[in-house]
Amino acid sequence: MIIVPESEIAALISAQDCFEAVEAVLAAMARDQAVNFPVIREALGHADALYGFKSGFDREAAVLGVKSGGYWPANAARGVANHQSTVLLFDPDTGRPRALVGGNLLTALRTAAAAAVSIRHLARADARVLGIIGAGHQAPFQLRAAAAQHPFERVVAWNRTPERLQGLAEIAAELGLPFEVVSLERLGAEAEVIVTITSSFAAILRDAHLRAGTHIACMGTDTRGKQELEPEILARARVFTDEIAQSISIGEAQHAVAHGMIGPADITAIGAVITGGHPGRCVQDEITLFDGTGIALQDLAVASRVARLARERGVAQQVGV
Amino acid sequence: MIIVPESEIAALISAQDCFEAVEAVLAAMARDQAVNFPVIREALGHADALYGFKSGFDREAAVLGVKSGGYWPANAARGVANHQSTVLLFDPDTGRPRALVGGNLLTALRTAAAAAVSIRHLARADARVLGIIGAGHQAPFQLRAAAAQHPFERVVAWNRTPERLQGLAEIAAELGLPFEVVSLERLGAEAEVIVTITSSFAAILRDAHLRAGTHIACMGTDTRGKQELEPEILARARVFTDEIAQSISIGEAQHAVAHGMIGPADITAIGAVITGGHPGRCVQDEITLFDGTGIALQDLAVASRVARLARERGVAQQVGV
Repeated sequence: MIIVPESEIAALISAQDCFEAVEAVLAAMARDQAVNFPVIREALGHADALYGFKSGFDREAAVLGVKSGGYWPANAARGVANHQSTVLLFDPDTGRPRALVGGNLLTALRTAAAAAVSIRHLARADARVLGIIGAGHQAPFQLRAAAAQHPFERVVAWNRTPERLQGLAEIAAELGLPFEVVSLERLGAEAEVIVTITSSFAAILRDAHLRAGTHIACMGTDTRGKQELEPEILARARVFTDEIAQSISIGEAQHAVAHGMIGPADITAIGAVITGGHPGRCVQDEITLFDGTGIALQDLAVASRVARLARERGVAQQVGV
Repeated sequence: MIIVPESEIAALISAQDCFEAVEAVLAAMARDQAVNFPVIREALGHADALYGFKSGFDREAAVLGVKSGGYWPANAARGVANHQSTVLLFDPDTGRPRALVGGNLLTALRTAAAAAVSIRHLARADARVLGIIGAGHQAPFQLRAAAAQHPFERVVAWNRTPERLQGLAEIAAELGLPFEVVSLERLGAEAEVIVTITSSFAAILRDAHLRAGTHIACMGTDTRGKQELEPEILARARVFTDEIAQSISIGEAQHAVAHGMIGPADITAIGAVITGGHPGRCVQDEITLFDGTGIALQDLAVASRVARLARERGVAQQVGV
């Protein structure tokens, strides 16, 4: 088997590689060729840590594996990332381990790639203004991935603590995109694509903020109780997701479902759009929404891609196991 | 982190090491200091494989991790073990991966160690005859581990295909123990400790076979539908297990529970005997029974022990991750 350490990943894989890998596995899911297994998530009662596993199998790509890891809130104080992930891939023909891949950067890249896939397939072709809500660790990845898939001409951004948007401003400058910190009202009125990437537990974006024809990639809500959008937005939007079961239980749709505004039948797996089974945006002026909850198959897809690249470029550490 | 390949494990860890590691973690469970997380087990729909994860956390020993793997029935034909397991251990303080350990031999050793723990704590001190039912891959491990923990003076054995017992006979000879292939009737009448280690889906050992005071370690039943004992045995025996929830769902007790003969309250976690919270055998002439279902914490305990030994002896492969 091979080891691909965390430190090698940035040089090996591009946002475009991740986009392709995530788009392909979402399509495989729509063809019933790839499945996520139940998620294990446990509070350790130690170091305030949340720990768990996401696992799955993509028959088409012959990718089988598990992402282990979790969240250790005291890590940052000792110079280690709070989110720790490791991906272990297996040969689906024999069950032998094939690759151990550092999963920290990949988790950020695959999350950004999922939003970018939704932008590619659901945003209006004439959208030129990207809005970003949130300024945490994940926000720069979202900006880079979105900009790589769509010809945006400027960026507007909002964060509860506006000073934290400086990092995003620098990336926009690097990408040659004018960048402005705005109110939520201006963001909703001007942005034609909005990515929300916060860890909020209460709605930030209101239905009244939105202009017609906007696409929203709602990426922050991945746990029961988290919320970024007023549920009225989901009630009127055409809603897509990575996995419907997660969307209604731990994703943004949990709130609209709990309020009886929508049901599972109102949500479409985005894989169906990629494979052509669903047209995606049906009306130019409707709101489309992608509820990105984060699934094992995304992690395994990008980890498998990076393992292949590491082999091809001779930077994989071979180990006997 | 370190890698401990499958090929190194046999030279690193002894049956006694495994006994100590498994006994300690079963005791930690009884003190509510160690917990198994939910088990994931999935049919892949590929290569007829069953694949899954067992994970857990031992706070006392600071052992956190997951055993990944499963059963690939076509492996043997290509010279690879059908059961494939890999253990990944994490630092519980940070979530960083600490060790990747080959899990095939360890799975056999920890299963045998659990039976040996039960013999140590539940068999009559004057027991001298060991009975073994089954002649598969796991049977030799059971014989070695049992003989290491109790002064047996001879071995009787039964298998549906008696010719397959030759391997067990050779190990008994190596251990200096007289060995005899017998009928089930003779095995039940003579053996004072019985280890069942088959993959049977119907009862083999009958209540009427047993002599008074026998201890039975029932190790084969780990899936819904498997069965080694007539349920009447559980109805009259004092029943112990590694984990009650598994015992009643996938262990041998599933059948006696389904027949309404016993309930969860009739089953004691063996950790309570190790810690002194339960006396274990209460009457010399009663039947004691250990329903060994196999839990993540056993796997993690022996893997953590082997990782420590590999570090101490300088045979661990250090890798960056």
